[in-house]
Order: sequence, then structure tokens, then C-alpha cells
Amino acid sequence: MKIWAGMILTAALAGPAMAQNKPAEPPSPQDILDRSGAASWRNIPAEDLVVMTLADGGQVIYQLAPDFAPVHVANIRQLVRSGYFDGAVILRVQDNYVVQWGRPDEDPTKPAGIDETPPAEYEWPLKGQKFKPLPWRDAYAKQAGHIASWPVASDGKTGWLVHCYSLIGVARDVAPDTGSATQLYTIMGHAPRHLDRNLAVVGRIVSGVEHLTARPRGTEALGFYKTDAERVKIVSARMAADLPAGDQPHWQILDSDTPTFDAWLSARANRSGAFFVKAAGALDLCNALPPVRTKP
Amino acid sequence: MKIWAGMILTAALAGPAMAQNKPAEPPSPQDILDRSGAASWRNIPAEDLVVMTLADGGQVIYQLAPDFAPVHVANIRQLVRSGYFDGAVILRVQDNYVVQWGRPDEDPTKPAGIDETPPAEYEWPLKGQKFKPLPWRDAYAKQAGHIASWPVASDGKTGWLVHCYSLIGVARDVAPDTGSATQLYTIMGHAPRHLDRNLAVVGRIVSGVEHLTARPRGTEALGFYKTDAERVKIVSARMAADLPAGDQPHWQILDSDTPTFDAWLSARANRSGAFFVKAAGALDLCNALPPVRTKP
Repeated sequence: MKIWAGMILTAALAGPAMAQNKPAEPPSPQDILDRSGAASWRNIPAEDLVVMTLADGGQVIYQLAPDFAPVHVANIRQLVRSGYFDGAVILRVQDNYVVQWGRPDEDPTKPAGIDETPPAEYEWPLKGQKFKPLPWRDAYAKQAGHIASWPVASDGKTGWLVHCYSLIGVARDVAPDTGSATQLYTIMGHAPRHLDRNLAVVGRIVSGVEHLTARPRGTEALGFYKTDAERVKIVSARMAADLPAGDQPHWQILDSDTPTFDAWLSARANRSGAFFVKAAGALDLCNALPPVRTKP
Repeated sequence: MKIWAGMILTAALAGPAMAQNKPAEPPSPQDILDRSGAASWRNIPAEDLVVMTLADGGQVIYQLAPDFAPVHVANIRQLVRSGYFDGAVILRVQDNYVVQWGRPDEDPTKPAGIDETPPAEYEWPLKGQKFKPLPWRDAYAKQAGHIASWPVASDGKTGWLVHCYSLIGVARDVAPDTGSATQLYTIMGHAPRHLDRNLAVVGRIVSGVEHLTARPRGTEALGFYKTDAERVKIVSARMAADLPAGDQPHWQILDSDTPTFDAWLSARANRSGAFFVKAAGALDLCNALPPVRTKP
């Protein structure tokens, strides 16, 4: 008997159960990843990775999505390189919703050259893009699937990045073109899909999301923290590409255009093994975020 | 301009924006709750509420679902009344998945009379039940909706409680009939719907979920904690009905069989107001958990 990520075992059993193995069972999602070849994985470019270090030692690494929100991503790279986020703070933690970080007030250290009114990069024409829809229904959109390993929903004409757990977006004021990327948020909790097409989704956390999601929830409206003492500092945010070669993280993401990904999806939709009495036979887009790993 | 729960405002604006108000906007989900009459709310019986107090002072209150998992709920009431959970611990916190609590090992203090092999109360015939489906698609089931304010999915013949954020289930071993309710878990993160119909869902946290979800994630496999020092103690778990009258909490849940609930659903599916540029026009079942409140 194998243990599956999806099992809810009693604690006493979790240890012994994991030590056993019945090879006759169909491969689990993890088996499929373990057997995958290097060609099933995309390298995430160092120019798309930001390494954020928190005052308590936590490290959060996130991937940018320049193909979908190029102006916002250009702003983020510039803000990071100018040191804008060094000394910024975690502003807000709202349970089952978002974690937001940045500076509490407008700040004079913002670098020149930032696009203060970026276009609303919330959706884009699907034409010419390799959109690979899931074979299952989506509660919110005509189709849900992936483009280059990103979770995308579509009405058949346009596509948009979806507010799944660990995805990153740009906070804004009331007017849609007011989010210059000085404040970012990540989703934690059940995907708040009503935000789709209303904010620019610009990336995804690939490592250390728990350093944001396990924090005390803010007690002010919308989960904002009340006092400076509650706001954990961001010591630094760096483009991975700017780090010394030996310090650069190397991450890969499962390529959504490979048979390995299809097999992984299918195994997740149809859990088998001794624990499961009924397979779901479907998978929600936000339960189908392509796995990531450090480059072996 | 009103602030909406769904807004991701920059921090500087959140204060001033909340002070203003434009009455011409359609009612928000919160407006609808604010204007609702007492008849739109169900009282949660004290016999269905468990009050769990943690060693760090956190209080978690959860509602039991005796109509859907009567044998498991009878076990929970008996375990609570015997003091079984007093001195139990939080065993496991796995990011974007579950928090699990109980005793690490089988324990001699378990009261006699517990059904050690409860039936698999995972789904039940829908016949004769007032199932109210949502008008939107569900990724996993033919229909999704509510019975008596509980989130239920259905294939048209049977119904089952859904593993939404804050719902509570019973951990078990590999055989389906091995979860006596000595270990419970709650969902945090994007709904792991592959667990539906594979475990007994027995309740929902109505207050204090953040005392479970904001904890450090466990570092062992499946998020189990490694050491006793990491495992926060449950000081006590009590049936609300057994508390002195003055200490009893009184909670209400929005009645899913009322026009107020329909209006609330519709407002959540079609967010309006100055912030939103595009309404989703749909709502996932796990984004449609009926709100709760203390009895006014």
C-alpha cells in the first residue's frame, strides 16, 4: 500500500503505511513525476524568478509571467532592481483570501521609468496561442486549461490567467489602470475567481508560499495589519538573474504540452490505490497547477 | 464608492475608500446580509455546536451535521462529552490542504460505546431531501447546491457534502469503515474535491478557523508535525449545550431556502461597484458557503 498525497490517514498509520508498497496499483501522480524524463520539464528563466527574503528568514521564490502581463512584469523587474521592495512589508493577510505586500504609503524611492498607468493586462485574444483546454467543466468559464504551464480560462475568444492558490496579482486602486505593481498579492484559500479579468495576474509562487500563508491574519478590515509590529519586513527582493551564479536558484515546471502532464492530470482526476473508494473523474483547474521542482 | 470584500485595494486607499458611499450602486453581498430579516437565518442548535479551546487561547467553534453523518456525529458528541479531545493536539498542518487534530496514538481513554466501524456515511440517496441546486456548472458533479445551508454535490441520484474550506471530515485508515472520529480534519486551501465521497464530512467551522489555518506547516510527510513541542494542545472541547447558559455561544447560518440567500448568491456571482470591470456571472459551490453570524 502506498501513501498518496490525497490521503487523510490517522496519524498512527501514516508511518507504517508509507513503508509499504504494492506495485500492482496504477501509477500515482507522484509516480508519474518520478518516472518523467527531463524533456517533460521547462526550465524557468532566471530573468523570470524573484527571490524574496523575509526578516524571519523565510524565502519566497516567484515566477513572473512576462508573456501575459508584459508591462506589469517590466515594472516588477524594475522595482525589484531598484531595491523598492527591500524594506517593504507584508501589509495584509486575510484568511481564505489573499496575502498582500508592498509599502503602506506612496514612497519617494520608486524608480523613474515605472509605467504608473499600465494597460489593463487582464485578458488577451487567444488567437495564435497554444491553449490546451482540460476535458472537464469549469464553474466560471467556457473552458479552462493551460498555456505554457500557466492556468488559463477562456470564453473561446479571450484568455486570462486564473486566481488559483499561489498565483500573484497586482493590487490597484479603483480605476483599472492604477496598479503599477508596487503592491502585490498572492491567493491563499479557495480560488476567488471573481477577481479574474479584474486584476493583472503576473506570476506564481514556486517555493515558500507557506512563509506567507501561515502568518497571523490581520485584524483590520480586509485583513490589513494594524501596527508596524505586526508587519513582517521584506529584507530583500532580487531577480534570480542578478544573483551570483552559485546563489541562483534553478527551477523547473512540468510542461503542460507533454504526455507526462496529461498522465499526471489523469492520475489526479482518477485517484486509485487502496484508500480511495470513488475516483472524482474530474479536476478543477486550480487543482491542476503544474508541479514545480528544483532542476535535478 | 464602497469597499467590497472582493477588492484588492492598495493599502493607502483602503481607509479613505471605506469612508465613502455611493447609494446608487446595486447592493453588495454584505448589503444584502445587513438588510436581511431574522427569518432568513437558521439558529444552529447548541447540540450541534462544539467549542474547542486551544492552549494558545484560540477558540474554534464548529457545527456538526447530524442529518448527513449521524453515526459519526454521535461518536463525536460522545468523544467530546467523555473529554477525549481534552489534551489532544493538532497533529498536522499541510499547506493548501488540511489541518488534522486528535491523539497521535490509540488511546485507552476512548469511551465505551463508540462505534469503531461506522458505516461509510459519504453519500446518501437524494430522495425526499430539499436539494437546491445552483444555476451554475460544477467541475466535479452533475449538480452543486445546498441542503439546509450545507454545501452538497450530486450526480442526480445521491448527494454528498463537499470538501470546501472550513468543512470538517473524519480521518480514517485504509479501510473505509475505520474512522471512528477520534481524529478530525478541516480543509484549508482550494477545495480538494477528490476527497468527496471518500471520507465522512461531519461538520463545518463557524468561528476561529484562522486558529488552525495560520499555524506553521508541519515538516514531516503530509504536513505532520515532528515533535511534541510543535503540537499545540487542545485544552478542551465541549458541546455548547453542556456549557452554562451564560457561556453558550449562539450562532446562526443564512438559510439557503430563502430569497435573501438567492439575492446574496446573485450579488456574489455578479459583483458590481466601481472596482469591478467584469462580473464573473457564476459562483463555485465553495465560494457560496452560507454566511454565519452570532445571533443578534
